[in-house]
Amino acid sequence: MLKGRHLIDPMDFTVEEMAQVFDLADKIIEDQRKYADVCKGKLLATLFYEPSTRTRFSFEAAMLRLGGQVIGFSEPGSSSVSKGESIADTIRTVACYTDIAVMRHPKEGAPKVASMHSDIPVINAGDGGHQHPTQTLTDLLTIRSEKRRLTDLTIGLCGDLKFGRTVHSLIKAMSRYSNNKFILISPDELKIPEYIKEIILQKNNVEFLECKNLESVIGDLDILYMTRVQRERFANEDDYLRLKDSYILDCEKMKKANPEMMVLHPLPRVNEISYEVDNDKRAYYFKQAKYGMFVRMALIAKLLGVDELC
Amino acid sequence: MLKGRHLIDPMDFTVEEMAQVFDLADKIIEDQRKYADVCKGKLLATLFYEPSTRTRFSFEAAMLRLGGQVIGFSEPGSSSVSKGESIADTIRTVACYTDIAVMRHPKEGAPKVASMHSDIPVINAGDGGHQHPTQTLTDLLTIRSEKRRLTDLTIGLCGDLKFGRTVHSLIKAMSRYSNNKFILISPDELKIPEYIKEIILQKNNVEFLECKNLESVIGDLDILYMTRVQRERFANEDDYLRLKDSYILDCEKMKKANPEMMVLHPLPRVNEISYEVDNDKRAYYFKQAKYGMFVRMALIAKLLGVDELC
Amino acid sequence: MLKGRHLIDPMDFTVEEMAQVFDLADKIIEDQRKYADVCKGKLLATLFYEPSTRTRFSFEAAMLRLGGQVIGFSEPGSSSVSKGESIADTIRTVACYTDIAVMRHPKEGAPKVASMHSDIPVINAGDGGHQHPTQTLTDLLTIRSEKRRLTDLTIGLCGDLKFGRTVHSLIKAMSRYSNNKFILISPDELKIPEYIKEIILQKNNVEFLECKNLESVIGDLDILYMTRVQRERFANEDDYLRLKDSYILDCEKMKKANPEMMVLHPLPRVNEISYEVDNDKRAYYFKQAKYGMFVRMALIAKLLGVDELC
Repeated sequence: MLKGRHLIDPMDFTVEEMAQVFDLADKIIEDQRKYADVCKGKLLATLFYEPSTRTRFSFEAAMLRLGGQVIGFSEPGSSSVSKGESIADTIRTVACYTDIAVMRHPKEGAPKVASMHSDIPVINAGDGGHQHPTQTLTDLLTIRSEKRRLTDLTIGLCGDLKFGRTVHSLIKAMSRYSNNKFILISPDELKIPEYIKEIILQKNNVEFLECKNLESVIGDLDILYMTRVQRERFANEDDYLRLKDSYILDCEKMKKANPEMMVLHPLPRVNEISYEVDNDKRAYYFKQAKYGMFVRMALIAKLLGVDELC
Repeated sequence: MLKGRHLIDPMDFTVEEMAQVFDLADKIIEDQRKYADVCKGKLLATLFYEPSTRTRFSFEAAMLRLGGQVIGFSEPGSSSVSKGESIADTIRTVACYTDIAVMRHPKEGAPKVASMHSDIPVINAGDGGHQHPTQTLTDLLTIRSEKRRLTDLTIGLCGDLKFGRTVHSLIKAMSRYSNNKFILISPDELKIPEYIKEIILQKNNVEFLECKNLESVIGDLDILYMTRVQRERFANEDDYLRLKDSYILDCEKMKKANPEMMVLHPLPRVNEISYEVDNDKRAYYFKQAKYGMFVRMALIAKLLGVDELC
Repeated sequence: MLKGRHLIDPMDFTVEEMAQVFDLADKIIEDQRKYADVCKGKLLATLFYEPSTRTRFSFEAAMLRLGGQVIGFSEPGSSSVSKGESIADTIRTVACYTDIAVMRHPKEGAPKVASMHSDIPVINAGDGGHQHPTQTLTDLLTIRSEKRRLTDLTIGLCGDLKFGRTVHSLIKAMSRYSNNKFILISPDELKIPEYIKEIILQKNNVEFLECKNLESVIGDLDILYMTRVQRERFANEDDYLRLKDSYILDCEKMKKANPEMMVLHPLPRVNEISYEVDNDKRAYYFKQAKYGMFVRMALIAKLLGVDELC
């Protein structure tokens, strides 16, 4: 039963509960019109203590496409709600006006604190470098929809594997499904943290391989999940310049990839995927954004318990 | 007849007109669904020349819960509408697009000026330290709903009585109902202004008492209206530190209060009410926020004249 | 067929296509209720990379009055969508969530670039000093509605004719209708650019006259289109002070005007039209703002192809 629940950590839901969300997303995709009014009379609060236009748009579009309405703020300046006020008081006030809240906050744990004082469901839309569970739902729905399974996949994760929260969450989430294998492609400076390897991968007997070169492994992948390699992560400019090209996906590298391989990216992309790749039918990153809206529709409907109306 | 009227000063409405708003609020609370579409096709403009997320949320939620829609801006930066343009021109343009407007402005009198040039109802959502009439409506609806009367009450007002516009408006408004008595609890630095005592209280033969100590009078109160004591109001830090604890409500002080006493606060609260008090059934300040939304629903419906549809 | 088209340049539509938009606007004005739900289930994105509250309000009100919904951002600060991301990627993401987009951008050409990568219609809501096609549609609908024709008119354009993009677009647009004549009233510093005279007016054999004095020609005009004369356009303060009064419209000058002359202004007005003129029945500039909303309703409905439902 997901009605009335919060979503703070990508692992808050069991595999079965995630399947419920994905199943509903499938139905929405199949017949969107049927769900066009299920949230009539419901209000979503979008509490963005730091700007994230893409994520905010996705949530707001999701709620509006379910027939609900939205109030909110989109950056710190407008959040007078927070001036000297505790997160607890803010969410209790917001809960007087709305039926469900989405919170983005620069501080880790803020959405968790909110959920502890809230009568309405709270969704974490990103808290610092910590969690971003609806990105994980997006990634999984995209894979499930396009590959027709969440098991038996070889998943390449490429770029900044040290700081990327989407990558860590994706590994955790996909490790719960059987027989997936990870290929972790990054420069030494940006390798996956040890705790992910120990606690998630080794403990669960998940097969993985670390390497530095995308080109050498791209042929083995069912999924290539690209992330940004940021200049500021490197101690010196030379290292950055020497390394960055290895982690840029272009048509040349795509030639060596499996014809069924999917390229994913959480967006925004800067230059880690060449524009020329956009026309390759294996480029799924914009379609992925669309799945992001659908999975949020399903999530909101589930947490509000309105999907039973259909 | 409230249709087409403005609300700029809390005293713009007669006691009878306020009763009409409260009666409608009662009906909305009783059967919210009945009013879910009365504002279909109507547009509210929220013109916030200074941020006030809480007040804006309350108005926007009110309009959306009536089936209307909202456009607006939420802080000075986005109000290009105002660049070099007069308030008169702004409201005349806004009136081309919308059916009713809410204005928050740092300058006293700005909403009044707007109302003088507007074909659509204008609601003052706070103009500097001047007026905030919907806070007063909120306070009165809360008292009326929970105490079942607006007369024969002993009302304690505690904290900063000098600068608090909500306190001044509440005194004015409650002085119009028979047999209310005020206990004004504040340090010398933050006593109620003389004009309030002379023009409002003495002139209307309203009983009142000034004192410095909350604990000594809390047992006599039907209502305790708390406000913030701001550090910056004191000439020196020592005075602030010496005095602040006397004006912090905690469970210890609540023990001496009447079992039926209501604690109200316009929010946001900083530290003038201890968090431990939140669990006391006499703490009404979050419920008060909810009444704030309902009274705004009633107000909007009345000014648009759509309540007659029900 | 306007369905699925973009509107970037005021001249993107033929005279016939503009007539389709105006005809629909007429119908909407006649029976707004009939169109109250034609955009149900549709989402408009308002992408304002620089603030323009008036234009944003007009578009948002238009969409909401058609029964559609709106998501968006209203100033650069909140547009994290754009952080390091190309306009192409932004619009492709936005197109995942919405059905039509409006873009305001400080850089000339940005909406054009967006339209080239977009699956959904893109409307230019102003790009730098370049184009603002819906202002031109507004101006033409106002003239057509009030004068019952777009031909055989003597149009005075007064003030800053050098930098005013609305003036340039209005000249281009009105030059496509037969027998219109322009009187171009400005100080030497702010004369119409040569290319407008050569390429638009002379090439199309459109009659025009340049002069410096409003009072001497006001009696000849069917339409007087006022624009702001900005202090910062002048090399020295003396020139500004010497000239500014000649370009301020007041009741004294209105006495010499034709009793049927229309005064238009794109707003915001600063001091180029005295407030006393507002009460003159020939002052149409606020009514013009209202036509602006109606023409945007018609435009959105046409680009989405939903007007055929009525």
